[in-house]
Amino acid sequence: MDIDFEGGKMSYYFSKTLRMSFDQAVKKVTEELKKEGFGILTDIDVKETLKKKLNLVFQNYKILGACNPSFAFKALQMENKIGLMLPCNVVVQETSDHEIEVAAIDPIESMLAVENPKLKEVAEEVRIKLRAVIDNL
Amino acid sequence: MDIDFEGGKMSYYFSKTLRMSFDQAVKKVTEELKKEGFGILTDIDVKETLKKKLNLVFQNYKILGACNPSFAFKALQMENKIGLMLPCNVVVQETSDHEIEVAAIDPIESMLAVENPKLKEVAEEVRIKLRAVIDNL
Repeated sequence: MDIDFEGGKMSYYFSKTLRMSFDQAVKKVTEELKKEGFGILTDIDVKETLKKKLNLVFQNYKILGACNPSFAFKALQMENKIGLMLPCNVVVQETSDHEIEVAAIDPIESMLAVENPKLKEVAEEVRIKLRAVIDNL
Repeated sequence: MDIDFEGGKMSYYFSKTLRMSFDQAVKKVTEELKKEGFGILTDIDVKETLKKKLNLVFQNYKILGACNPSFAFKALQMENKIGLMLPCNVVVQETSDHEIEVAAIDPIESMLAVENPKLKEVAEEVRIKLRAVIDNL
């Protein structure tokens, strides 16, 4: 377990390094997200996109957009433009030494600019769930 | 034009209210994004998702995930987990009085928790483009 704290200061994500194939990691993350009530609404293959659009070579890198519909609905009722910060992204990427790093956004940090105390309570609940996903990988 | 400032303080988005149909607004936003170099990588129909997952009735509401590949590549090189905040979302929603509100994320505000001065420069460039998209609607 190497939850990321960057020298004591909370970072904007929770992360863990896995020793398995990229595809296995994506599958494992998807399963753990499901256990916490998150479906995957979007799935961006960054490697493929950069190859296609810019003809660039990039490492294996996926952005999974995770959404727990009940929490999303609560958040939308409290802040009607919070869709600007949904879904909650989870990045799976292959590092230069062929390990797989998984990182989940910390919704408290990503929503810092949104001044809405009620929303913060929902973000706290989602944060606990996303952190559990990373812990359980 | 009603760029949103919330009493002088910058908000976490730029927005404008349009008087046209929801579908026309989505089309117009897509065109203006394209003019500024953004493709749409993800398209979440929130109304449909909430109906399907929770059997709830919600207003017309779409989250368009806009991405300018060159800027995304620059940002990824500077901050390898910035995929957690990509793509840049644009929300199109129907308000209670049947107007259409379009809001684009302000990347400077959404990336507040990321302490990376170089990334901030890229975010400034993207902010100018997203603001132009809203201005030109």
